[in-house]
Amino acid sequence: MSKGITSRATDYSQWYNELVVKADLAEHSAVRGCMVIKPYGYAIWEKMQAALDKMFKDTGHSNAYFPLFIPKSFFSKEASHVDGFATECAVVTHYRLKNDGTGNIVVDEDAKLEEELIVRPTSETIIWNTYKGWIESYRDLPILVNQWANVVRWEMRTRLFLRTAEFLWQEGHTAHATREEAIEETERMLEVYADFAENWMAVPVVKGRKTENERFAGALDTYCIEALMQDGKALQAGTSHFLGQNFAKAFDVKFTSKEGKLDYVWATSWGVSTRLMGALVMAHSDDAGLVLPPKLAPIQVVIVPIYKSEEDLRAIGDWADVLIAELKSKGISVKFDDRDTQRPGFKFAEWELKGVPVRIAVGARDMQNGTVEIARRDTQTKETVSQEGLSDRIASLLDDIQANIFNKANQFREDNTTAVDTYQEFQRVLDEKGGFVSAHWDGTVETEKRIKEETKATIRCIPLDAPEEAGQCILTGKPSARRVLFARAY
Amino acid sequence: MSKGITSRATDYSQWYNELVVKADLAEHSAVRGCMVIKPYGYAIWEKMQAALDKMFKDTGHSNAYFPLFIPKSFFSKEASHVDGFATECAVVTHYRLKNDGTGNIVVDEDAKLEEELIVRPTSETIIWNTYKGWIESYRDLPILVNQWANVVRWEMRTRLFLRTAEFLWQEGHTAHATREEAIEETERMLEVYADFAENWMAVPVVKGRKTENERFAGALDTYCIEALMQDGKALQAGTSHFLGQNFAKAFDVKFTSKEGKLDYVWATSWGVSTRLMGALVMAHSDDAGLVLPPKLAPIQVVIVPIYKSEEDLRAIGDWADVLIAELKSKGISVKFDDRDTQRPGFKFAEWELKGVPVRIAVGARDMQNGTVEIARRDTQTKETVSQEGLSDRIASLLDDIQANIFNKANQFREDNTTAVDTYQEFQRVLDEKGGFVSAHWDGTVETEKRIKEETKATIRCIPLDAPEEAGQCILTGKPSARRVLFARAY
Repeated sequence: MSKGITSRATDYSQWYNELVVKADLAEHSAVRGCMVIKPYGYAIWEKMQAALDKMFKDTGHSNAYFPLFIPKSFFSKEASHVDGFATECAVVTHYRLKNDGTGNIVVDEDAKLEEELIVRPTSETIIWNTYKGWIESYRDLPILVNQWANVVRWEMRTRLFLRTAEFLWQEGHTAHATREEAIEETERMLEVYADFAENWMAVPVVKGRKTENERFAGALDTYCIEALMQDGKALQAGTSHFLGQNFAKAFDVKFTSKEGKLDYVWATSWGVSTRLMGALVMAHSDDAGLVLPPKLAPIQVVIVPIYKSEEDLRAIGDWADVLIAELKSKGISVKFDDRDTQRPGFKFAEWELKGVPVRIAVGARDMQNGTVEIARRDTQTKETVSQEGLSDRIASLLDDIQANIFNKANQFREDNTTAVDTYQEFQRVLDEKGGFVSAHWDGTVETEKRIKEETKATIRCIPLDAPEEAGQCILTGKPSARRVLFARAY
Repeated sequence: MSKGITSRATDYSQWYNELVVKADLAEHSAVRGCMVIKPYGYAIWEKMQAALDKMFKDTGHSNAYFPLFIPKSFFSKEASHVDGFATECAVVTHYRLKNDGTGNIVVDEDAKLEEELIVRPTSETIIWNTYKGWIESYRDLPILVNQWANVVRWEMRTRLFLRTAEFLWQEGHTAHATREEAIEETERMLEVYADFAENWMAVPVVKGRKTENERFAGALDTYCIEALMQDGKALQAGTSHFLGQNFAKAFDVKFTSKEGKLDYVWATSWGVSTRLMGALVMAHSDDAGLVLPPKLAPIQVVIVPIYKSEEDLRAIGDWADVLIAELKSKGISVKFDDRDTQRPGFKFAEWELKGVPVRIAVGARDMQNGTVEIARRDTQTKETVSQEGLSDRIASLLDDIQANIFNKANQFREDNTTAVDTYQEFQRVLDEKGGFVSAHWDGTVETEKRIKEETKATIRCIPLDAPEEAGQCILTGKPSARRVLFARAY
């Protein structure tokens, strides 16, 4: 097959890079570190957006839009925030080009900005500067706003979807009257993300909190969902931050409480990005191509006619029209692939590569027998079934596939989560098996950093459901009250 | 009323500025020339996006995403394109900030880009550079892609929605095998825009072609829709460009035809932006606030309970729950405004300001009588009607309002379109009445420019439906074959 890709066993990283390009999800652009998201990839992202957007609205949020540019001085206002982002900022310094007289287009030095503008890497600063004008009293709270936007974080080593200089995301920014309400919001949005990951992406996730060392720059507490990829590496799939009063203090945002007391406003922020596309690919796909969960597949069913004569094709087409109408009325997206420029085998491979969950092949003999051949992408199995009641069968098959993809990923994660009690075992599991490693840790940044240096594993999170359990830190032997989850990660 | 705004008669421009801010559509940000689109304004934009996106998809287009940044050298490749945009480009020159040692955050001069990056003012260049990799033969054509994105055009004098440094838009970029097909696409998308403007925004538009002087930088032909605002000024609401082979030549994009011949690819591009929000406000709104066409109103119906006791409120609330469920099942968005912090009069004024098409007021006596008071925003008229069959009545009322808003704007445009045959009359109409002025023009750029200098009126378009009619140019007396449409414009 001309579109063949490297197998996962041969080179997982190469497999991913080739698959993303060959399945028409994205490609590198002429601009260093920036990607082009191609129509097929973007269609999946649109489905993600639609599902998330509905979940945000169902939990009371509205969308808004804030400027792409942030004055440099805004960044300096929250000390740890600027530390976190300063080294990866794209900076706008001029606002005009000119012809230098010899036909070359150059930057016009007369058009230098008095203050440089940063292309947003995240929008806490510009948004809290705006909220200052929106908030006077408790009546103005809470503010529950989300933004869908592009952001830029300059990266030297980039990978499509996983790490790019520009990426697309949503960032929620909420303002609250009390600490408790802000924490509740932080946790609510983590639940939304976990719900989306598991029920739409079919990717099981661990919900937890980041260690101090891994927190968002400017947050008091960072919650995250962590997923496991097929190569045993973890991927952070979404974060929700409790920002305390840090940004309110930096931008002087106070409110009058019901009791007439003046206080700083409490904040959260939370986001997921096109990185989820990378997670989706790496969690489920196989050596034949993408495996998409039906709920996010742009095309859920493809019908490939097998014909020799125009007459055969016409008969199949007439029959397919009825099926397509039935499927569409059930909200199922379907494509009838009657291209006469390609053979069925080529089409089969192409739709496999693109991860279409269900393929229906139907030929002249099927038409006589009242049958079709159904192939499911997740298991790569085929069966011949009756044309009777086909749309109902397909609807239920899509549900089965969605569940099966999740169950398979869930089983993989269970098989690849290992509890260890010694550092030797810890290193052995990381090297030989990978996956999540559950171990005791003494709670210090020093130990966390030393483990990272020695093993390349980071603490992915302190799981929310981690039970109290007395133990000893695998590195230092100091006492620990619960296990944390380590892994090598993207 | 605390939220009172300047009347249109007193100062139309001031009325607009105040209305956009007080109705919570948008506000100026701390970043020069950039706006914040507030949740209520963004909700209208989302409705516009959803309707347009569906129209694009129904005409065969897919969405994709291309980089925010464009290498400076790409701009120089299409000569008239760079001329058109060079003087308004935001330029990224560095990719890192640093602490200068004294606690100040400064640009890191060690992180200077080898080639400056332009923040996209439009994406023809980066997209055609990408299409080069996508197109080999006629089988790869047409490419029918759209992008929803932010763009930046540095502006010195900005106005919310109408002219801002950053704005949101969609830009379609299509590639075709033949000139005819590209022209057909250009015209198809103009029709889509006109359909959207008239049937969703309730804004009547003139479809036409721009003169050479007013064409998009890089286009062979620019089609546009032009709308008339209440102050008699025109507003360009959307453009669709036939780009010929200009960008294919600049980026060397060729294809092999069915006949095996190598040729450059034909192109179109087309876009509408958040400028439409400005058109929507200026076309319909009045001195009491926004007037929104129901199809784009985030809240179509507001129910205001008038009550003295909690018991009254409960009874009204129970009744409203049933009505709300009925309205929602008809796809009508409705808000029950039971805030106890505001009086009914305040609420009435607020929802009027925000342009909610239908207001229902219901009190204890109404509950006894089985009636409600319905007020429609467009005519500011009220009537008392039975609670029986209310949801059907409202559904049909919303249709009436949509039609009435369009008809009113259409009548206004008819009343303010004047045919003139002398330059004296032309100037008099412009000064005393404004609106569209239909006149003969000799077809030269010189005449067009002189008329603009002397009267501030520009040729908005050569209407597609302008009949052949022999006449004499109002300025030069030279022969002309059809009338064109002049106006002062935004």
